[in-house]
Amino acid sequence: MEKAMDAGRQSEVTCVDFWCNEFGMRVRIALRELGVPFEYIEEDLRVRERSELVRRMNPVHRSIPILIHHGLPVCGSANIIEYIDEVWGEETRLLPGDPADRADARFWADFIDHKVFSTQTKFFTSKGEEKEAAKEELVEHLKRLEEVLGDKCFFSGDEFGFLDVVFIPFSSMFYGYEQHGGIDLEAECPNLTRWEKRCRERESVCEVLPDGKVQYELHKKFYGIE
Amino acid sequence: MEKAMDAGRQSEVTCVDFWCNEFGMRVRIALRELGVPFEYIEEDLRVRERSELVRRMNPVHRSIPILIHHGLPVCGSANIIEYIDEVWGEETRLLPGDPADRADARFWADFIDHKVFSTQTKFFTSKGEEKEAAKEELVEHLKRLEEVLGDKCFFSGDEFGFLDVVFIPFSSMFYGYEQHGGIDLEAECPNLTRWEKRCRERESVCEVLPDGKVQYELHKKFYGIE
Repeated sequence: MEKAMDAGRQSEVTCVDFWCNEFGMRVRIALRELGVPFEYIEEDLRVRERSELVRRMNPVHRSIPILIHHGLPVCGSANIIEYIDEVWGEETRLLPGDPADRADARFWADFIDHKVFSTQTKFFTSKGEEKEAAKEELVEHLKRLEEVLGDKCFFSGDEFGFLDVVFIPFSSMFYGYEQHGGIDLEAECPNLTRWEKRCRERESVCEVLPDGKVQYELHKKFYGIE
Repeated sequence: MEKAMDAGRQSEVTCVDFWCNEFGMRVRIALRELGVPFEYIEEDLRVRERSELVRRMNPVHRSIPILIHHGLPVCGSANIIEYIDEVWGEETRLLPGDPADRADARFWADFIDHKVFSTQTKFFTSKGEEKEAAKEELVEHLKRLEEVLGDKCFFSGDEFGFLDVVFIPFSSMFYGYEQHGGIDLEAECPNLTRWEKRCRERESVCEVLPDGKVQYELHKKFYGIE
């Protein structure tokens, strides 16, 4: 699925990830947006034991994605995007320039990491009333993001930026939201639906994001959903 | 406990916090380090209902600290420190200049927020075997930070910076670690012990950090520890 953009310079930048990992997709999109060639190493999350590389490069969390630059690891997906922006962002910057806008983008990135993701997991792993409550909460979170986006093209305005990179991988789960809980995203969040289509027109995004059906099938297996 | 540094300019910068809040102390230390005058508004966390100000300024999480600058809120303590550094950091910067060092500092800040804090809470709220396991895990986390600090004066080297600001409020719990679980921090983490003393010599820190005994007594009541 994922191909190295420039295998010849593999020693400089490496991204360790699993193709359908919502957190790792961010890194691969950011690298593409800023035109950074990288080697891609697949870490299959379906295998319980982490590889020697992951254990060595991220001994604290043993998680992916990991960006390896000149042999040194950077871990944590939002952290990696900030790093990519600081090292390779020249004409194009992913983070906004104004401190208040940056703080706002970081606030919502944290909201996605710690509210949307945990609620999404609850939604896919629970049943009955608990599932219904998680569904309601998930829609509430999505509506907050719908409001932040408003009628802008991208979260930061006219340009695709940090918060778009952070959230767009979650759109690969939108089909799953619909199938698993009947969430009609187009009706609930029309702005997000338009934004998703707009983002998917970008090469960086469409090369990285898996198809919603494929993603849902994989998560069904992963979460043991019948 | 906490006094406004310059009540006359209250409309410009306001910090909403509770005096013994480990996350909020960071903000007050950072403001003092960069010489930013601010008004302090106390939000008593012992009262269950959040104030109208907190509900209005942080409707998503209804949590503190909140920094209000020219009427606009910035939420999330690490986020606020980055904001303070970007707006008021001139000769003194809290974040390191090098992108790899910045990524490293952000990685460990996240580790403190999501590993150390949750383990600390487990340690204070559990009993028996669960408490013992939490204690072991807490010591393990502290030893990781001990290793990151090494024999340097501060986390980033010779200068007090971002990661020091992020972690020093936790040192107000060190006495509690000892009392509650017999953790001999001086033996387990001699570097952290020296670092704590060094940090407490700074005006910004000693004006903000509560005494360990006072902090432990308050947490005992809060967690219902007899």
